[in-house]
Amino acid sequence: MSPENKILETLSENTCFGGVQGVYRHASAVCGCDMTFAVYLPPAAQEGPVPVLWYLSGLTCTHENAMTKAGAQAWAAAAGIALVFPDTSPRGEGIADDDAFDLGQGAGFYVDATEPPWAPNFSMWSYIVEELPELLFAEFPLAEGAQGITGHSMGGHGALTLALRLPDRFRSVSAFAPIANPSASDWGRRQLTAYLGADEAAWSDHDASLLMRDRGWKGPVLIDQGTGDQFYDLLRPGALMEAMAARRQGGSFRFQPGYDHSYFFVASFMRDHVEFHAEALWA
Amino acid sequence: MSPENKILETLSENTCFGGVQGVYRHASAVCGCDMTFAVYLPPAAQEGPVPVLWYLSGLTCTHENAMTKAGAQAWAAAAGIALVFPDTSPRGEGIADDDAFDLGQGAGFYVDATEPPWAPNFSMWSYIVEELPELLFAEFPLAEGAQGITGHSMGGHGALTLALRLPDRFRSVSAFAPIANPSASDWGRRQLTAYLGADEAAWSDHDASLLMRDRGWKGPVLIDQGTGDQFYDLLRPGALMEAMAARRQGGSFRFQPGYDHSYFFVASFMRDHVEFHAEALWA
Repeated sequence: MSPENKILETLSENTCFGGVQGVYRHASAVCGCDMTFAVYLPPAAQEGPVPVLWYLSGLTCTHENAMTKAGAQAWAAAAGIALVFPDTSPRGEGIADDDAFDLGQGAGFYVDATEPPWAPNFSMWSYIVEELPELLFAEFPLAEGAQGITGHSMGGHGALTLALRLPDRFRSVSAFAPIANPSASDWGRRQLTAYLGADEAAWSDHDASLLMRDRGWKGPVLIDQGTGDQFYDLLRPGALMEAMAARRQGGSFRFQPGYDHSYFFVASFMRDHVEFHAEALWA
Repeated sequence: MSPENKILETLSENTCFGGVQGVYRHASAVCGCDMTFAVYLPPAAQEGPVPVLWYLSGLTCTHENAMTKAGAQAWAAAAGIALVFPDTSPRGEGIADDDAFDLGQGAGFYVDATEPPWAPNFSMWSYIVEELPELLFAEFPLAEGAQGITGHSMGGHGALTLALRLPDRFRSVSAFAPIANPSASDWGRRQLTAYLGADEAAWSDHDASLLMRDRGWKGPVLIDQGTGDQFYDLLRPGALMEAMAARRQGGSFRFQPGYDHSYFFVASFMRDHVEFHAEALWA
Protein backbone atom coordinates (compact mmCIF):
# COMPACT_ATOMS: atom_id res chain seq x y z
CA MET A 1 0.00 0.00 0.00
CA SER A 2 1.14 3.52 -0.66
CA PRO A 3 2.23 5.46 2.43
CA GLU A 4 0.23 8.39 0.99
CA ASN A 5 -2.94 6.36 1.42
CA LYS A 6 -5.02 8.10 4.06
CA ILE A 7 -7.90 5.63 3.97
CA LEU A 8 -5.96 2.52 4.94
CA GLU A 9 -3.14 2.19 7.40
CA THR A 10 -0.89 -0.82 6.76
CA LEU A 11 -0.12 -2.58 10.03
CA SER A 12 1.89 -5.43 8.51
CA GLU A 13 2.54 -7.21 5.23
CA ASN A 14 4.27 -10.59 5.11
CA THR A 15 5.18 -12.67 2.11
CA CYS A 16 3.24 -15.93 2.42
CA PHE A 17 2.99 -18.80 -0.07
CA GLY A 18 4.25 -16.46 -2.78
CA GLY A 19 1.54 -13.88 -2.06
CA VAL A 20 1.08 -11.23 0.61
CA GLN A 21 -0.67 -11.52 3.96
CA GLY A 22 -1.53 -7.98 5.00
CA VAL A 23 -3.20 -6.42 8.03
CA TYR A 24 -4.81 -3.01 7.70
CA ARG A 25 -6.68 -0.49 9.83
CA HIS A 26 -9.23 2.09 8.79
CA ALA A 27 -11.73 4.45 10.37
CA SER A 28 -15.14 2.79 10.14
CA ALA A 29 -18.09 5.15 9.87
CA VAL A 30 -20.74 2.52 10.53
CA CYS A 31 -18.95 1.13 13.61
CA GLY A 32 -17.78 4.52 14.82
CA CYS A 33 -14.29 3.31 15.59
CA ASP A 34 -11.10 2.11 13.96
CA MET A 35 -11.46 -1.39 12.52
CA THR A 36 -8.70 -3.84 11.66
CA PHE A 37 -8.91 -6.52 8.97
CA ALA A 38 -6.59 -8.85 7.10
CA VAL A 39 -6.37 -9.62 3.38
CA TYR A 40 -4.40 -12.43 1.77
CA LEU A 41 -3.53 -11.84 -1.86
CA PRO A 42 -2.37 -14.94 -3.73
CA PRO A 43 0.45 -14.79 -6.30
CA ALA A 44 -2.18 -14.61 -9.06
CA ALA A 45 -3.24 -11.17 -7.81
CA GLN A 46 -0.04 -9.75 -9.30
CA GLU A 47 -1.60 -10.36 -12.72
CA GLY A 48 -4.99 -8.76 -12.03
CA PRO A 49 -8.12 -9.01 -9.90
CA VAL A 50 -8.77 -12.39 -8.30
CA PRO A 51 -11.87 -13.96 -6.75
CA VAL A 52 -12.29 -13.43 -3.03
CA LEU A 53 -13.37 -15.71 -0.19
CA TRP A 54 -14.66 -13.98 2.94
CA TYR A 55 -13.88 -15.77 6.19
CA LEU A 56 -15.99 -14.64 9.17
CA SER A 57 -14.62 -15.58 12.57
CA GLY A 58 -16.25 -16.78 15.75
CA LEU A 59 -16.73 -15.55 19.30
CA THR A 60 -13.71 -13.87 20.92
CA CYS A 61 -11.79 -13.82 17.63
CA THR A 62 -10.23 -10.88 15.85
CA HIS A 63 -8.96 -10.78 12.24
CA GLU A 64 -5.93 -12.67 13.49
CA ASN A 65 -7.10 -16.13 14.59
CA ALA A 66 -7.94 -17.58 11.21
CA MET A 67 -5.12 -15.67 9.54
CA THR A 68 -2.55 -17.45 11.71
CA LYS A 69 -4.17 -20.79 12.59
CA ALA A 70 -6.43 -21.97 9.76
CA GLY A 71 -3.76 -22.73 7.17
CA ALA A 72 -5.96 -21.21 4.49
CA GLN A 73 -3.25 -19.33 2.63
CA ALA A 74 -1.67 -22.52 1.28
CA TRP A 75 -4.86 -23.49 -0.50
CA ALA A 76 -5.83 -19.96 -1.52
CA ALA A 77 -2.43 -19.50 -3.14
CA ALA A 78 -2.85 -22.71 -5.10
CA ALA A 79 -6.41 -21.84 -6.10
CA GLY A 80 -5.60 -18.23 -6.98
CA ILE A 81 -8.18 -16.66 -4.71
CA ALA A 82 -7.88 -13.93 -2.10
CA LEU A 83 -8.97 -14.23 1.53
CA VAL A 84 -10.55 -11.52 3.69
CA PHE A 85 -10.54 -11.84 7.48
CA PRO A 86 -12.64 -9.10 9.12
CA ASP A 87 -12.85 -8.48 12.85
CA THR A 88 -15.92 -9.77 14.72
CA SER A 89 -17.10 -6.52 16.36
CA PRO A 90 -16.24 -2.91 17.01
CA ARG A 91 -13.59 -2.51 19.71
CA GLY A 92 -11.98 0.05 21.94
CA GLU A 93 -12.28 2.13 25.06
CA GLY A 94 -15.45 4.01 24.24
CA ILE A 95 -17.30 0.99 22.84
CA ALA A 96 -19.96 -0.88 24.84
CA ASP A 97 -18.98 -4.28 26.22
CA ASP A 98 -20.12 -7.03 28.56
CA ASP A 99 -18.32 -9.29 30.98
CA ALA A 100 -19.60 -12.35 29.12
CA PHE A 101 -17.24 -13.59 26.41
CA ASP A 102 -20.20 -14.14 24.08
CA LEU A 103 -21.74 -10.66 24.18
CA GLY A 104 -20.28 -7.29 23.18
CA GLN A 105 -16.74 -6.88 21.91
CA GLY A 106 -15.63 -9.98 20.00
CA ALA A 107 -19.27 -11.09 19.68
CA GLY A 108 -20.98 -8.85 17.14
CA PHE A 109 -23.07 -11.68 15.70
CA TYR A 110 -23.12 -9.94 12.28
CA VAL A 111 -26.22 -7.86 13.04
CA ASP A 112 -26.99 -4.14 13.15
CA ALA A 113 -27.93 -3.54 16.78
CA THR A 114 -30.99 -1.42 17.42
CA GLU A 115 -30.94 -1.49 21.21
CA PRO A 116 -28.89 0.46 23.77
CA PRO A 117 -26.05 0.40 24.60
CA TRP A 118 -25.10 -1.48 21.40
CA ALA A 119 -26.84 0.48 18.65
CA PRO A 120 -24.25 3.27 18.18
CA ASN A 121 -21.38 0.92 17.24
CA PHE A 122 -22.50 -2.68 16.78
CA SER A 123 -23.32 -2.57 13.07
CA MET A 124 -21.39 -5.58 11.82
CA TRP A 125 -24.04 -6.43 9.21
CA SER A 126 -23.64 -3.06 7.49
CA TYR A 127 -19.90 -3.16 8.01
CA ILE A 128 -19.49 -6.50 6.24
CA VAL A 129 -22.21 -5.91 3.65
CA GLU A 130 -21.47 -2.31 2.72
CA GLU A 131 -18.56 -0.45 4.20
CA LEU A 132 -15.78 -3.02 4.08
CA PRO A 133 -16.54 -4.28 0.53
CA GLU A 134 -16.57 -0.71 -0.78
CA LEU A 135 -13.13 -0.17 0.71
CA LEU A 136 -11.74 -3.54 -0.41
CA PHE A 137 -12.82 -3.35 -4.03
CA ALA A 138 -11.42 0.18 -4.30
CA GLU A 139 -8.06 -0.63 -2.72
CA PHE A 140 -7.18 -4.24 -3.62
CA PRO A 141 -7.09 -6.28 -6.87
CA LEU A 142 -10.27 -8.22 -6.06
CA ALA A 143 -12.99 -9.28 -8.51
CA GLU A 144 -16.26 -7.95 -7.12
CA GLY A 145 -18.22 -10.37 -9.31
CA ALA A 146 -16.56 -13.44 -7.82
CA GLN A 147 -17.22 -13.56 -4.07
CA GLY A 148 -17.69 -16.56 -1.80
CA ILE A 149 -18.18 -16.64 1.95
CA THR A 150 -17.40 -19.00 4.79
CA GLY A 151 -16.89 -18.82 8.54
CA HIS A 152 -16.53 -20.66 11.81
CA SER A 153 -19.07 -20.88 14.63
CA MET A 154 -20.56 -17.36 15.04
CA GLY A 155 -18.80 -16.63 11.73
CA GLY A 156 -20.51 -19.63 10.14
CA HIS A 157 -23.78 -18.07 11.26
CA GLY A 158 -22.65 -14.83 9.64
CA ALA A 159 -21.58 -16.50 6.41
CA LEU A 160 -24.83 -18.41 6.01
CA THR A 161 -27.10 -15.49 6.85
CA LEU A 162 -25.24 -13.13 4.55
CA ALA A 163 -25.26 -15.58 1.64
CA LEU A 164 -28.90 -16.55 2.10
CA ARG A 165 -30.00 -12.92 2.15
CA LEU A 166 -27.61 -11.73 -0.58
CA PRO A 167 -27.66 -14.56 -3.14
CA ASP A 168 -26.79 -12.21 -5.99
CA ARG A 169 -23.62 -11.11 -4.27
CA PHE A 170 -22.17 -14.47 -3.28
CA ARG A 171 -21.55 -17.33 -5.68
CA SER A 172 -20.76 -19.88 -2.97
CA VAL A 173 -21.22 -20.45 0.75
CA SER A 174 -19.83 -22.89 3.31
CA ALA A 175 -19.41 -23.05 7.07
CA PHE A 176 -17.41 -24.75 9.81
CA ALA A 177 -19.50 -25.69 12.87
CA PRO A 178 -21.88 -22.74 12.42
CA ILE A 179 -24.25 -21.40 15.06
CA ALA A 180 -27.04 -22.79 12.94
CA ASN A 181 -30.21 -21.83 14.76
CA PRO A 182 -29.50 -18.93 17.14
CA SER A 183 -33.12 -18.02 17.81
CA ALA A 184 -33.51 -21.38 19.56
CA SER A 185 -30.14 -21.49 21.34
CA ASP A 186 -28.40 -19.88 24.28
CA TRP A 187 -25.86 -18.86 21.65
CA GLY A 188 -28.33 -16.50 20.07
CA ARG A 189 -31.37 -15.76 22.18
CA ARG A 190 -29.43 -13.73 24.72
CA GLN A 191 -27.45 -11.85 22.07
CA LEU A 192 -30.34 -11.25 19.67
CA THR A 193 -32.41 -9.95 22.59
CA ALA A 194 -29.60 -7.62 23.60
CA TYR A 195 -28.83 -6.36 20.10
CA LEU A 196 -32.25 -6.47 18.39
CA GLY A 197 -34.77 -6.45 21.26
CA ALA A 198 -37.19 -9.03 22.63
CA ASP A 199 -39.47 -9.13 19.56
CA GLU A 200 -38.41 -12.36 17.87
CA ALA A 201 -39.78 -11.22 14.51
CA ALA A 202 -36.64 -9.13 14.14
CA TRP A 203 -34.46 -12.22 14.66
CA SER A 204 -35.58 -14.33 11.74
CA ASP A 205 -33.32 -12.52 9.27
CA HIS A 206 -30.39 -13.69 11.39
CA ASP A 207 -31.13 -17.39 11.75
CA ALA A 208 -29.58 -19.65 9.11
CA SER A 209 -32.02 -22.50 9.70
CA LEU A 210 -35.06 -20.25 9.33
CA LEU A 211 -33.62 -18.55 6.25
CA MET A 212 -32.64 -21.87 4.70
CA ARG A 213 -36.12 -23.29 5.22
CA ASP A 214 -37.67 -20.11 3.83
CA ARG A 215 -35.42 -19.38 0.86
CA GLY A 216 -32.89 -22.12 0.20
CA TRP A 217 -29.67 -21.39 -1.63
CA LYS A 218 -29.13 -21.37 -5.38
CA GLY A 219 -26.12 -23.70 -5.44
CA PRO A 220 -24.49 -26.41 -3.37
CA VAL A 221 -23.69 -25.74 0.29
CA LEU A 222 -20.80 -27.27 2.26
CA ILE A 223 -21.08 -27.61 6.06
CA ASP A 224 -18.57 -29.39 8.30
CA GLN A 225 -19.42 -30.19 11.89
CA GLY A 226 -17.25 -32.13 14.35
CA THR A 227 -18.97 -34.89 16.28
CA GLY A 228 -16.74 -34.16 19.28
CA ASP A 229 -17.63 -30.48 19.31
CA GLN A 230 -17.88 -29.26 22.92
CA PHE A 231 -20.53 -26.73 21.85
CA TYR A 232 -22.58 -29.15 19.77
CA ASP A 233 -25.87 -28.52 21.60
CA LEU A 234 -25.49 -24.74 21.36
CA LEU A 235 -24.76 -24.89 17.62
CA ARG A 236 -27.91 -26.89 16.79
CA PRO A 237 -26.67 -28.52 13.58
CA GLY A 238 -29.78 -30.67 13.49
CA ALA A 239 -32.00 -27.65 12.87
CA LEU A 240 -30.00 -26.69 9.80
CA MET A 241 -30.00 -30.28 8.53
CA GLU A 242 -33.77 -30.44 8.90
CA ALA A 243 -34.13 -27.15 7.05
CA MET A 244 -31.90 -28.41 4.22
CA ALA A 245 -33.87 -31.64 4.05
CA ALA A 246 -37.22 -29.84 4.05
CA ARG A 247 -36.00 -27.52 1.32
CA ARG A 248 -34.29 -30.34 -0.66
CA GLN A 249 -31.25 -28.11 -0.58
CA GLY A 250 -28.28 -29.36 -2.62
CA GLY A 251 -25.00 -29.69 -0.81
CA SER A 252 -23.02 -31.62 1.78
CA PHE A 253 -23.53 -31.62 5.54
CA ARG A 254 -20.58 -33.59 6.84
CA PHE A 255 -20.24 -34.87 10.39
CA GLN A 256 -16.53 -35.28 11.03
CA PRO A 257 -15.86 -38.01 13.60
CA GLY A 258 -14.01 -36.92 16.71
CA TYR A 259 -13.32 -33.32 15.71
CA ASP A 260 -13.97 -30.58 18.27
CA HIS A 261 -14.64 -26.84 17.88
CA SER A 262 -11.00 -25.73 17.66
CA TYR A 263 -8.88 -24.47 14.82
CA PHE A 264 -7.38 -27.97 14.62
CA PHE A 265 -10.79 -28.89 13.21
CA VAL A 266 -11.04 -25.85 10.94
CA ALA A 267 -7.54 -26.35 9.55
CA SER A 268 -8.22 -30.02 8.88
CA PHE A 269 -10.97 -29.21 6.38
CA MET A 270 -9.87 -25.83 5.09
CA ARG A 271 -8.54 -27.31 1.87
CA ASP A 272 -11.93 -28.77 1.03
CA HIS A 273 -13.64 -25.44 1.66
CA VAL A 274 -11.19 -23.32 -0.32
CA GLU A 275 -11.36 -25.72 -3.25
CA PHE A 276 -15.17 -25.84 -3.01
CA HIS A 277 -15.30 -22.05 -3.29
CA ALA A 278 -12.58 -21.84 -5.94
CA GLU A 279 -14.56 -24.16 -8.19
CA ALA A 280 -17.57 -21.84 -8.00
CA LEU A 281 -15.56 -18.62 -8.16
CA TRP A 282 -13.44 -19.53 -11.17
CA ALA A 283 -16.40 -21.01 -13.06
CA MET B 1 -3.31 -41.32 27.45
CA SER B 2 -4.48 -43.35 30.36
CA PRO B 3 -5.62 -41.32 33.37
CA GLU B 4 -3.59 -43.78 35.50
CA ASN B 5 -0.42 -42.57 33.80
CA LYS B 6 1.59 -40.76 36.44
CA ILE B 7 4.51 -39.85 34.17
CA LEU B 8 2.58 -37.77 31.67
CA GLU B 9 -0.26 -35.36 32.30
CA THR B 10 -2.48 -34.80 29.27
CA LEU B 11 -3.27 -31.10 28.91
CA SER B 12 -5.24 -31.41 25.67
CA GLU B 13 -5.86 -33.74 22.76
CA ASN B 14 -7.56 -32.53 19.57
CA THR B 15 -8.43 -34.50 16.47
CA CYS B 16 -6.48 -32.93 13.60
CA PHE B 17 -6.18 -34.12 9.99
CA GLY B 18 -7.42 -37.51 11.08
CA GLY B 19 -4.75 -37.85 13.77
CA VAL B 20 -4.33 -36.41 17.26
CA GLN B 21 -2.61 -33.20 18.32
CA GLY B 22 -1.78 -33.62 21.99
CA VAL B 23 -0.16 -31.42 24.62
CA TYR B 24 1.46 -33.05 27.65
CA ARG B 25 3.28 -32.06 30.82
CA HIS B 26 5.83 -34.01 32.80
CA ALA B 27 8.30 -33.46 35.61
CA SER B 28 11.71 -33.00 34.04
CA ALA B 29 14.66 -34.16 36.12
CA VAL B 30 17.32 -32.50 33.98
CA CYS B 31 15.50 -29.15 33.89
CA GLY B 32 14.30 -29.36 37.49
CA CYS B 33 10.80 -28.19 36.63
CA ASP B 34 7.63 -29.25 34.86
CA MET B 35 8.03 -29.20 31.09
CA THR B 36 5.29 -29.06 28.47
CA PHE B 37 5.56 -30.48 24.96
CA ALA B 38 3.27 -31.32 22.05
CA VAL B 39 3.09 -34.44 19.89
CA TYR B 40 1.16 -34.82 16.67
CA LEU B 41 0.32 -38.42 15.79
CA PRO B 42 -0.80 -38.95 12.18
CA PRO B 43 -3.59 -41.39 11.30
CA ALA B 44 -0.94 -43.98 10.40
CA ALA B 45 0.09 -44.16 14.09
CA GLN B 46 -3.11 -46.10 14.78
CA GLU B 47 -1.50 -49.02 12.93
CA GLY B 48 1.86 -48.96 14.68
CA PRO B 49 4.98 -46.89 15.31
CA VAL B 50 5.64 -44.10 12.81
CA PRO B 51 8.74 -42.02 12.02
CA VAL B 52 9.11 -38.80 13.95
CA LEU B 53 10.17 -35.30 12.97
CA TRP B 54 11.42 -33.08 15.78
CA TYR B 55 10.61 -29.39 15.40
CA LEU B 56 12.68 -27.08 17.62
CA SER B 57 11.26 -23.60 18.07
CA GLY B 58 12.87 -20.19 18.22
CA LEU B 59 13.30 -17.39 20.74
CA THR B 60 10.25 -16.58 22.90
CA CYS B 61 8.37 -19.64 21.63
CA THR B 62 6.82 -22.46 23.64
CA HIS B 63 5.59 -25.82 22.31
CA GLU B 64 2.56 -23.94 21.03
CA ASN B 65 3.73 -21.57 18.28
CA ALA B 66 4.63 -24.11 15.63
CA MET B 67 1.81 -26.41 16.72
CA THR B 68 -0.77 -23.75 15.89
CA LYS B 69 0.86 -21.63 13.18
CA ALA B 70 3.16 -23.75 11.01
CA GLY B 71 0.52 -25.84 9.27
CA ALA B 72 2.75 -28.90 9.64
CA GLN B 73 0.03 -31.37 10.64
CA ALA B 74 -1.51 -31.37 7.15
CA TRP B 75 1.71 -32.61 5.60
CA ALA B 76 2.67 -34.92 8.46
CA ALA B 77 -0.71 -36.62 8.22
CA ALA B 78 -0.25 -37.16 4.50
CA ALA B 79 3.31 -38.40 4.95
CA GLY B 80 2.48 -40.63 7.92
CA ILE B 81 5.04 -39.11 10.27
CA ALA B 82 4.69 -37.79 13.81
CA LEU B 83 5.75 -34.31 14.95
CA VAL B 84 7.28 -33.39 18.30
CA PHE B 85 7.24 -29.77 19.48
CA PRO B 86 9.30 -29.31 22.67
CA ASP B 87 9.46 -26.12 24.70
CA THR B 88 12.53 -23.87 24.27
CA SER B 89 13.67 -23.62 27.90
CA PRO B 90 12.79 -24.44 31.49
CA ARG B 91 10.11 -22.13 32.87
CA GLY B 92 8.46 -21.09 36.08
CA GLU B 93 8.73 -19.03 39.21
CA GLY B 94 11.87 -20.54 40.66
CA ILE B 95 13.75 -20.60 37.35
CA ALA B 96 16.41 -18.00 36.45
CA ASP B 97 15.42 -15.43 33.84
CA ASP B 98 16.55 -12.18 32.23
CA ASP B 99 14.75 -9.07 31.07
CA ALA B 100 16.04 -9.59 27.53
CA PHE B 101 13.73 -11.65 25.31
CA ASP B 102 16.72 -13.54 23.93
CA LEU B 103 18.24 -14.79 27.19
CA GLY B 104 16.78 -17.02 29.88
CA GLN B 105 13.24 -18.38 29.74
CA GLY B 106 12.18 -18.91 26.13
CA ALA B 107 15.81 -18.77 25.01
CA GLY B 108 17.54 -21.96 26.10
CA PHE B 109 19.69 -22.17 22.95
CA TYR B 110 19.76 -25.99 23.23
CA VAL B 111 22.83 -26.11 25.46
CA ASP B 112 23.57 -27.45 28.94
CA ALA B 113 24.46 -24.34 30.92
CA THR B 114 27.53 -24.57 33.14
CA GLU B 115 27.42 -21.03 34.56
CA PRO B 116 25.35 -19.46 37.34
CA PRO B 117 22.48 -18.70 37.57
CA TRP B 118 21.58 -20.91 34.58
CA ALA B 119 23.35 -24.19 35.33
CA PRO B 120 20.74 -25.73 37.70
CA ASN B 121 17.89 -25.69 35.15
CA PHE B 122 19.04 -24.70 31.66
CA SER B 123 19.90 -28.16 30.32
CA MET B 124 18.00 -28.15 27.05
CA TRP B 125 20.68 -30.19 25.27
CA SER B 126 20.29 -33.10 27.70
CA TYR B 127 16.53 -32.61 27.77
CA ILE B 128 16.16 -32.93 24.00
CA VAL B 129 18.92 -35.52 23.55
CA GLU B 130 18.18 -37.80 26.51
CA GLU B 131 15.22 -37.18 28.77
CA LEU B 132 12.46 -36.31 26.33
CA PRO B 133 13.27 -39.08 23.80
CA GLU B 134 13.29 -41.67 26.57
CA LEU B 135 9.83 -40.54 27.61
CA LEU B 136 8.47 -40.27 24.06
CA PHE B 137 9.59 -43.66 22.84
CA ALA B 138 8.17 -45.28 25.96
CA GLU B 139 4.80 -43.54 25.80
CA PHE B 140 3.95 -42.98 22.13
CA PRO B 141 3.91 -45.16 18.99
CA LEU B 142 7.09 -43.65 17.54
CA ALA B 143 9.84 -45.46 15.64
CA GLU B 144 13.09 -44.69 17.44
CA GLY B 145 15.08 -45.74 14.38
CA ALA B 146 13.43 -43.17 12.12
CA GLN B 147 14.05 -39.68 13.47
CA GLY B 148 14.53 -36.42 11.59
CA ILE B 149 14.98 -32.93 13.00
CA THR B 150 14.18 -29.40 11.91
CA GLY B 151 13.61 -26.03 13.53
CA HIS B 152 13.23 -22.30 13.11
CA SER B 153 15.74 -19.59 14.04
CA MET B 154 17.19 -20.59 17.46
CA GLY B 155 15.46 -23.92 16.81
CA GLY B 156 17.21 -24.20 13.46
CA HIS B 157 20.46 -23.77 15.35
CA GLY B 158 19.32 -26.52 17.70
CA ALA B 159 18.30 -28.85 14.89
CA LEU B 160 21.57 -28.44 13.00
CA THR B 161 23.82 -28.80 16.05
CA LEU B 162 21.96 -31.86 17.30
CA ALA B 163 22.03 -33.57 13.92
CA LEU B 164 25.67 -32.74 13.23
CA ARG B 165 26.73 -34.09 16.61
CA LEU B 166 24.39 -37.10 16.61
CA PRO B 167 24.50 -38.36 13.00
CA ASP B 168 23.64 -41.90 14.06
CA ARG B 169 20.44 -40.77 15.70
CA PHE B 170 18.99 -38.57 12.99
CA ARG B 171 18.43 -39.65 9.42
CA SER B 172 17.62 -36.17 8.11
CA VAL B 173 18.04 -32.51 9.04
CA SER B 174 16.65 -29.24 7.78
CA ALA B 175 16.18 -25.70 9.10
CA PHE B 176 14.15 -22.54 8.59
CA ALA B 177 16.22 -19.35 8.93
CA PRO B 178 18.58 -20.89 11.48
CA ILE B 179 20.91 -18.98 13.78
CA ALA B 180 23.72 -20.36 11.72
CA ASN B 181 26.89 -19.05 13.34
CA PRO B 182 26.13 -17.98 16.92
CA SER B 183 29.73 -17.70 18.06
CA ALA B 184 30.14 -14.78 15.65
CA SER B 185 26.74 -13.11 16.21
CA ASP B 186 24.95 -11.05 18.84
CA TRP B 187 22.44 -13.89 18.70
CA GLY B 188 24.91 -16.25 20.29
CA ARG B 189 27.94 -14.56 21.82
CA ARG B 190 25.96 -13.05 24.68
CA GLN B 191 23.99 -16.22 25.33
CA LEU B 192 26.90 -18.65 24.98
CA THR B 193 28.93 -16.46 27.34
CA ALA B 194 26.09 -16.47 29.84
CA TYR B 195 25.36 -20.18 29.62
CA LEU B 196 28.80 -21.68 28.91
CA GLY B 197 31.27 -19.04 30.04
CA ALA B 198 33.72 -16.76 28.25
CA ASP B 199 36.01 -19.51 26.97
CA GLU B 200 34.99 -19.82 23.34
CA ALA B 201 36.40 -23.33 23.08
CA ALA B 202 33.24 -24.50 24.83
CA TRP B 203 31.07 -22.85 22.17
CA SER B 204 32.25 -24.72 19.10
CA ASP B 205 30.00 -27.70 19.78
CA HIS B 206 27.05 -25.31 19.50
CA ASP B 207 27.80 -23.52 16.25
CA ALA B 208 26.30 -25.08 13.13
CA SER B 209 28.74 -23.41 10.75
CA LEU B 210 31.77 -24.61 12.71
CA LEU B 211 30.35 -28.12 13.07
CA MET B 212 29.42 -28.25 9.39
CA ARG B 213 32.90 -27.20 8.33
CA ASP B 214 34.45 -29.70 10.74
CA ARG B 215 32.24 -32.75 10.23
CA GLY B 216 29.73 -32.30 7.42
CA TRP B 217 26.53 -34.28 7.32
CA LYS B 218 26.06 -37.76 5.89
CA GLY B 219 23.03 -36.91 3.72
CA PRO B 220 21.40 -33.97 1.99
CA VAL B 221 20.55 -30.86 4.03
CA LEU B 222 17.65 -28.47 3.36
CA ILE B 223 17.90 -24.85 4.52
CA ASP B 224 15.36 -22.11 3.73
CA GLN B 225 16.17 -18.48 4.41
CA GLY B 226 13.98 -15.49 3.55
CA THR B 227 15.72 -12.61 1.78
CA GLY B 228 13.45 -10.15 3.61
CA ASP B 229 14.32 -11.56 7.03
CA GLN B 230 14.51 -8.72 9.54
CA PHE B 231 17.15 -10.68 11.48
CA TYR B 232 19.26 -11.61 8.47
CA ASP B 233 22.52 -10.16 9.81
CA LEU B 234 22.11 -11.87 13.18
CA LEU B 235 21.43 -15.24 11.58
CA ARG B 236 24.61 -15.21 9.44
CA PRO B 237 23.39 -17.54 6.68
CA GLY B 238 26.52 -16.77 4.68
CA ALA B 239 28.72 -18.49 7.25
CA LEU B 240 26.76 -21.71 6.92
CA MET B 241 26.79 -21.48 3.13
CA GLU B 242 30.55 -21.04 3.17
CA ALA B 243 30.93 -24.03 5.47
CA MET B 244 28.74 -26.15 3.19
CA ALA B 245 30.72 -25.03 0.17
CA ALA B 246 34.06 -25.72 1.86
CA ARG B 247 32.83 -29.14 2.90
CA ARG B 248 31.20 -29.88 -0.49
CA GLN B 249 28.14 -30.70 1.59
CA GLY B 250 25.20 -32.09 -0.37
CA GLY B 251 21.89 -30.32 0.02
CA SER B 252 19.91 -27.20 -0.81
CA PHE B 253 20.37 -23.75 0.67
CA ARG B 254 17.43 -21.79 -0.68
CA PHE B 255 17.05 -18.03 -0.48
CA GLN B 256 13.33 -17.32 -0.64
CA PRO B 257 12.66 -13.89 -2.16
CA GLY B 258 10.75 -11.47 0.05
CA TYR B 259 10.06 -13.80 2.96
CA ASP B 260 10.67 -12.51 6.48
CA HIS B 261 11.32 -14.31 9.77
CA SER B 262 7.67 -14.97 10.67
CA TYR B 263 5.57 -18.10 10.69
CA PHE B 264 4.09 -16.92 7.39
CA PHE B 265 7.52 -17.85 6.03
CA VAL B 266 7.78 -21.12 7.95
CA ALA B 267 4.29 -22.24 6.90
CA SER B 268 5.00 -21.41 3.26
CA PHE B 269 7.79 -23.99 3.06
CA MET B 270 6.68 -26.52 5.67
CA ARG B 271 5.38 -28.91 3.04
CA ASP B 272 8.81 -29.10 1.39
CA HIS B 273 10.49 -29.80 4.72
CA VAL B 274 8.04 -32.46 5.89
CA GLU B 275 8.26 -34.23 2.53
CA PHE B 276 12.07 -33.93 2.56
CA HIS B 277 12.18 -35.67 5.93
CA ALA B 278 9.49 -38.20 5.07
CA GLU B 279 11.49 -39.36 2.09
CA ALA B 280 14.49 -40.07 4.32
CA LEU B 281 12.48 -41.48 7.21
CA TRP B 282 10.39 -43.91 5.19
CA ALA B 283 13.38 -45.07 3.13
